[in-house]
Amino acid sequence: MMSDCSIKSAEAGAGNLDLVWSDDHHSRFHFIWLRDNCPCPACLHPQTRERTFDVMSIAADQPVPSSVDVHEDQLVICWEDGHVSTFQSDWLRPNCYSKLAREARREKPVLWTSKVKCALPEIDYETVMKNDTGLLAWLDLLIEYGFALIRNTPTVQGEVTRVANRIAYLRETNFGRDFDVISKPNPNNVAYTALKLESHSDLPNWELPPGTQFLHCLEFDAEGGESTLVDGFGAARQLENEDPAAFETLAKLHIPFRFHDQDWDVQWSAPTIAQDPLGDIQEIRFHAALTAPLDLDFEDVLPFYRAYRIFTDIVRRPENILALKLRPGDLLVFNNRRALHGRAAFNPETGPRHLQGCYVDNDSILSKRRILRGKS
Amino acid sequence: MMSDCSIKSAEAGAGNLDLVWSDDHHSRFHFIWLRDNCPCPACLHPQTRERTFDVMSIAADQPVPSSVDVHEDQLVICWEDGHVSTFQSDWLRPNCYSKLAREARREKPVLWTSKVKCALPEIDYETVMKNDTGLLAWLDLLIEYGFALIRNTPTVQGEVTRVANRIAYLRETNFGRDFDVISKPNPNNVAYTALKLESHSDLPNWELPPGTQFLHCLEFDAEGGESTLVDGFGAARQLENEDPAAFETLAKLHIPFRFHDQDWDVQWSAPTIAQDPLGDIQEIRFHAALTAPLDLDFEDVLPFYRAYRIFTDIVRRPENILALKLRPGDLLVFNNRRALHGRAAFNPETGPRHLQGCYVDNDSILSKRRILRGKS
Repeated sequence: MMSDCSIKSAEAGAGNLDLVWSDDHHSRFHFIWLRDNCPCPACLHPQTRERTFDVMSIAADQPVPSSVDVHEDQLVICWEDGHVSTFQSDWLRPNCYSKLAREARREKPVLWTSKVKCALPEIDYETVMKNDTGLLAWLDLLIEYGFALIRNTPTVQGEVTRVANRIAYLRETNFGRDFDVISKPNPNNVAYTALKLESHSDLPNWELPPGTQFLHCLEFDAEGGESTLVDGFGAARQLENEDPAAFETLAKLHIPFRFHDQDWDVQWSAPTIAQDPLGDIQEIRFHAALTAPLDLDFEDVLPFYRAYRIFTDIVRRPENILALKLRPGDLLVFNNRRALHGRAAFNPETGPRHLQGCYVDNDSILSKRRILRGKS
Repeated sequence: MMSDCSIKSAEAGAGNLDLVWSDDHHSRFHFIWLRDNCPCPACLHPQTRERTFDVMSIAADQPVPSSVDVHEDQLVICWEDGHVSTFQSDWLRPNCYSKLAREARREKPVLWTSKVKCALPEIDYETVMKNDTGLLAWLDLLIEYGFALIRNTPTVQGEVTRVANRIAYLRETNFGRDFDVISKPNPNNVAYTALKLESHSDLPNWELPPGTQFLHCLEFDAEGGESTLVDGFGAARQLENEDPAAFETLAKLHIPFRFHDQDWDVQWSAPTIAQDPLGDIQEIRFHAALTAPLDLDFEDVLPFYRAYRIFTDIVRRPENILALKLRPGDLLVFNNRRALHGRAAFNPETGPRHLQGCYVDNDSILSKRRILRGKS
């Protein structure tokens, strides 16, 4: 899409280069930035595309160009020390670091409420598995909405891993590489109860909680037991609108989480709502069961409980909760760090319920989409 | 160590409880904090030790005790609604959230320079493998110094994985579950050159770079090729002392990293020096080859380059660089997010060099130490 865009003018100022593009977009590049990103084979390894230029090999002052020329879709800079850097315009433009250009590159999540049920992000198993176009369509849904359903997945053991491996290797955790959520009449383990589970994110006690969760329904004959999803990013934005101070509190305070059993004692502290420097929400950590005793500054304790209650109230509002009764063959895939998940109570006397699950890092999801977009 | 400490007095104030301990330490607990951490079987699951109490089940105002009593090493609170919470003093004391108590619980890294060569954190393979005491001794060294050498490891393929599995499963990456660093005469791949590698951290382009790296020397007959380590936390503290503004710049600005080949395009932005809310350094990300074109605010670009040069200069100072010539049987284990690693140039014509490596998450390292400390 950038290929239509060519350089209209280039003007060297004191310390930086001003470019005007054919669509009148302005870019301003520091000379040191340009020198550091010189794409010649001596500065950027042609095969690995890794930087080999050492910024310490030049003086601390910014380098100075002796000439700047625009040739068709190239910008050629001759530096005073004799080095020549040739930049392609279709590389320069997407790397423009003006506020406008960076804003345009930001990921825009599609926020949703329970109304998303009328137009679910869903796709057929065959579409995902048969070619890259289908896989990319699914990844786009998953990344925009934070969840996507795959329908008509074969109800065979291990199929969930095969689908996940379309993207990457599995993210292992202290619960193993994959796991079974089995509920049968007369459960013999607390993990297999039939009780309601409030919306939560898994494994917030790890420095990096697992990114994308895959839950494949193999068997489900019981009454009740709807899976629930809440858009944690949407809930956080609602909180920000309704009570900005509460939002700031949950974005600022690091809350301790802990899971411990005989073999593992995994602890990490992080904000409930994590933002990147531009204010985009990166992650929600929300799981009362695994929240360790707060170790905040004394004066932060009451503001935290206040903010946490308001956020919890938003997360539990019926209009925010998407309830889905999974059928055998449904594969629910969601960003565990955005879409908070839970389960309605069900009656295990009425039949079996068997889900099989695994995780893949969000880095791997985003990487695969970039690779597929590059091919298409 | 806390078991000697008993409660001397307990006094309920407006909204919180003041405890004085037998060693005169003071603790102040909010009533809501105490109620939220009630350890009775109805509030804390006796088997999973996960919270089952729902803070939304009580009113938004802080709960009020009708009585507070100290019985031997227990604190018993009867709440106005009739619920009773009984806390053990040896649980309360380590969860005290006074500034003093939290300060005492902080991890204190032992910072080092090249002089650490005179007293290397090292341990024998047999000690690590034979029992939990040896394993714990090694983990203590590794966590304090950010690296530890294991000597006399059998020089057999896959041994590195067996040692890593003493702690946990491996952290897989786009380079696989484990990897070989092989340099032989006439290298056929750029990864197998004999060139000098400057100190760096691996995979800074992942949201969570691999934590602990294991590098097992199987064969090494070439001239040169010393492994190098720099204490990244120590270098950052030197920077903070010499140029606080540069330290702040590297702690604040998120720098983009990228690795891309045919199958992967993994990108993440993070500060060079990451700190937790108390100012402790959590991580160093430092790898020029994988630093993507900066996409900072225009006014941050020159301050970044300035700070980055000063930090790079510190990292490259000979007095900060520990050089170790690995011998077959040496297993170098280091925190990839603290100890920056590199390699001196070597002469591949003089013999083979074969290292085998893998990663384990730092969460797993810390978890194992907690478990072993609990047993000892």
